[in-house]
Amino acid sequence: MDSKEISPVVIARLPRYYRYLGELKENGIERISSKELSGRMKVTASQIRQDFNNFGGFGQQGYGYNVDYLYEEIGKILGLTKKYRMIVIGAGNLGQALAGHSAFERRGFLLTAIFDIDPKLEGKKIHGIPVTGMGELPGFIKKQGADIAVITTPSEAAREIASELYQYGVRGFWNFAHTDLHLPEDAVVENVHLTESLMRLSYALKTLE
Amino acid sequence: MDSKEISPVVIARLPRYYRYLGELKENGIERISSKELSGRMKVTASQIRQDFNNFGGFGQQGYGYNVDYLYEEIGKILGLTKKYRMIVIGAGNLGQALAGHSAFERRGFLLTAIFDIDPKLEGKKIHGIPVTGMGELPGFIKKQGADIAVITTPSEAAREIASELYQYGVRGFWNFAHTDLHLPEDAVVENVHLTESLMRLSYALKTLE
Repeated sequence: MDSKEISPVVIARLPRYYRYLGELKENGIERISSKELSGRMKVTASQIRQDFNNFGGFGQQGYGYNVDYLYEEIGKILGLTKKYRMIVIGAGNLGQALAGHSAFERRGFLLTAIFDIDPKLEGKKIHGIPVTGMGELPGFIKKQGADIAVITTPSEAAREIASELYQYGVRGFWNFAHTDLHLPEDAVVENVHLTESLMRLSYALKTLE
Repeated sequence: MDSKEISPVVIARLPRYYRYLGELKENGIERISSKELSGRMKVTASQIRQDFNNFGGFGQQGYGYNVDYLYEEIGKILGLTKKYRMIVIGAGNLGQALAGHSAFERRGFLLTAIFDIDPKLEGKKIHGIPVTGMGELPGFIKKQGADIAVITTPSEAAREIASELYQYGVRGFWNFAHTDLHLPEDAVVENVHLTESLMRLSYALKTLE
C-alpha cells in the first residue's frame, strides 16, 4: 500500500476518526458499527466504509470495527508510532502554551528546546525546559537534530528563521506566524492562522443576523 | 447582494486575501493586478477575478485593484467593521496566550473577561483583565452580554460549558477543546483542533520519507 495515493480529503478526516476512536476507547467501547461512527462523525456510513477501504478495511461485515485495532492502525498511518523531536521558536505567550501542552508529548511529539531572541527570557524554564538564545540554534540542531519547528515568532521574523532552520536540516514546520513560509518542496508546513480562523467565525456570526 | 449565497470555498479564501492585502498596505502598495496577487496567493488570476466578481468586482480593467478599497470591502464582508465582545473560558496557558493576543483586539475582537474554575487563579490579572470565577459567568453575561466565547477548557468540561453559554445567549464559539461541541443550529462554532493539526503534519512528514 502506498499511502501517497490516498486522497487528501480522506487523509484530512483521519485525525478526527482518531480522536473519536480515542474517546470510544476511553469509554471502554470495544466495537463500533460504521452506522454508529457515522452518527458521531457526521459523515455517512458508506463514506466511512469507503474511507477505511483505502487502508484495507479494518472491519468484518456485521461485526463492526474493533476500536482498539482501528485506533492503532490509523495512528500508524498518521505516523504517530514515531517520536518527533520538536523545538519551539519564540517563547512568548503562545510559544509557552504550546511548549507546555502535555497532550502533544503523549502523541510522540517531544519538546526538546525553546528558543527566543530576547536575552531576558534566556534560562527561564518553561515546563522544565530552559529558554535558549537564538545564537545557540545552529549548534543545537547540528548536535541533536530536530524534526519539527513550531514557529511562534512575529510574521517579519518567521520567514527568515524558517529558511535558516531548513538549511540546518529541519523539514517539518508548524507555523503560527501570521504569514506564509516560503520553503523548498521537501519541507512540509502545517499552518495554524488564528486570526483567519477568528475571521471565519466573524463571517459566520454575520450570516446569523 | 446576499452574502449567504456565496460559496463557502470562496469565503474560506477571504481571510487570506485580507491578510495579503494588509501586507501590501503595510508596504505602501496602492494598486495590484490580479496577476501579481495570483503569484502571492498561489491561486490563478482568473480564480481571483471570479472570487471578487462574487462581491461586485472591485477592480477596473487594466488598472488593477485598489488595495485600500479591496481591503476595506473584504473586511466589511467578513464582518470586521463590527466590535465583538469576547470572553475566554479557561485561564490556562492557552487561554492566557489567546487573551493576550493584541492582534485580535486590533481587528475588533475585544476581550471583556476571563473565567476559570480554579479559585487560585481568581483575581490574577492577565493583560490587565482579572480572572473571574465561573460562578460569576451567568451574572456577567446577563449584565454585559458576550458575542464570542473562546473555549480553552479540558474536553470533558467544554461541551457542558458551551451549552450553558448558549442558554445565556452566546452564539459565537471559538473552540480549542479537543472535542466537538453539540449546539443548536443558530450557534456558530469555529474549531481549532491543534492536536489534529499536528497529526496532519506528522502524516505529511511521513510521506517525505
